[in-house]
Amino acid sequence: MSDSSSTPARWELKKDESYAKCRVFDVRKQHFTHPTRNLAGDFFVLNSPDWVNVVALTPDDGIVLVRQFRFGLQDLSWEVPGGIMEPGEDPVKTGLRELEEETGWQAKTGKLLASCSPNPAILNNRCHFVLATDLHFHGKTAWDEHEDMQAAVFSEATVMDMVLRQEICHSLALNALMYFHAWREGRLV
Amino acid sequence: MSDSSSTPARWELKKDESYAKCRVFDVRKQHFTHPTRNLAGDFFVLNSPDWVNVVALTPDDGIVLVRQFRFGLQDLSWEVPGGIMEPGEDPVKTGLRELEEETGWQAKTGKLLASCSPNPAILNNRCHFVLATDLHFHGKTAWDEHEDMQAAVFSEATVMDMVLRQEICHSLALNALMYFHAWREGRLV
Repeated sequence: MSDSSSTPARWELKKDESYAKCRVFDVRKQHFTHPTRNLAGDFFVLNSPDWVNVVALTPDDGIVLVRQFRFGLQDLSWEVPGGIMEPGEDPVKTGLRELEEETGWQAKTGKLLASCSPNPAILNNRCHFVLATDLHFHGKTAWDEHEDMQAAVFSEATVMDMVLRQEICHSLALNALMYFHAWREGRLV
Repeated sequence: MSDSSSTPARWELKKDESYAKCRVFDVRKQHFTHPTRNLAGDFFVLNSPDWVNVVALTPDDGIVLVRQFRFGLQDLSWEVPGGIMEPGEDPVKTGLRELEEETGWQAKTGKLLASCSPNPAILNNRCHFVLATDLHFHGKTAWDEHEDMQAAVFSEATVMDMVLRQEICHSLALNALMYFHAWREGRLV
């Protein structure tokens, strides 16, 4: 390792006020000052619950994907199932619940593979990646009010191909599949 | 592939108004209706320019990382260099410019590895992943007003280890390194 400079300073939060309420997230206007340089500024941060994304392995080594219209993208998107954590909920519990509600696949077993920061510049939350196994398909979905989705099972090879061809484009679904791939190869620490 | 349902509908955008201006992004309140079901709703979408993240390979196969305080995370974060695209700018140009400004490493060559949607549910932009090669270190950084960062070169093996250990936690930096890893192994299509 070659290190060209020293550890950067941690800015100090001096003021934190609500700026806009947007249902699934709140925008906060936060005033930070630099501890040693004469610098200060207002920064906009999205306050959001944590999210969970699930890689669900079917008994014949398929992966369950969902396809839905995404309002930011204004297009359909293939992704792994997932959703928003309830306060205090365990990420594995959220993951298995969202998997079942979105796809009708019930998993007996789940484990946390990894977590990340969806965007540490503007978001204060985490996204957790859960592996769901021992799956059973009962087909009863329970979509939220605005959900309208397709669920399908693809082979692992096809899913990895969809990642490389960018037919899966959601950054967090890509993260989930990267950690799954590393787990599959025995590289996950 | 086993497909349990049909292609979901594309919702229709009926109204699009500014809701909050947040400097690096704007929040828009958008009214969508479902084309066939009796469903409608207001959705909050962040309008943002595209972003670029750069995997910069030094002559001895090191990777340049930066560490900076992130206001969403309220902590320091190791990431790949990157920044916001100017209107009409080519992602490779943005990537090489941001690399040089943030780290003092100048690259003669750049190529686009892949792109993704940072969050298609709430963001309308793309993030592009650029590979920078033919690097030369001159050490002259040109930070933006609020930038205060450390730059360092790590071996490829160390960077991949930081990914697996979640010492790199920014979803988009993880995406950039995943596509770099696939390119390195000749798997990128």
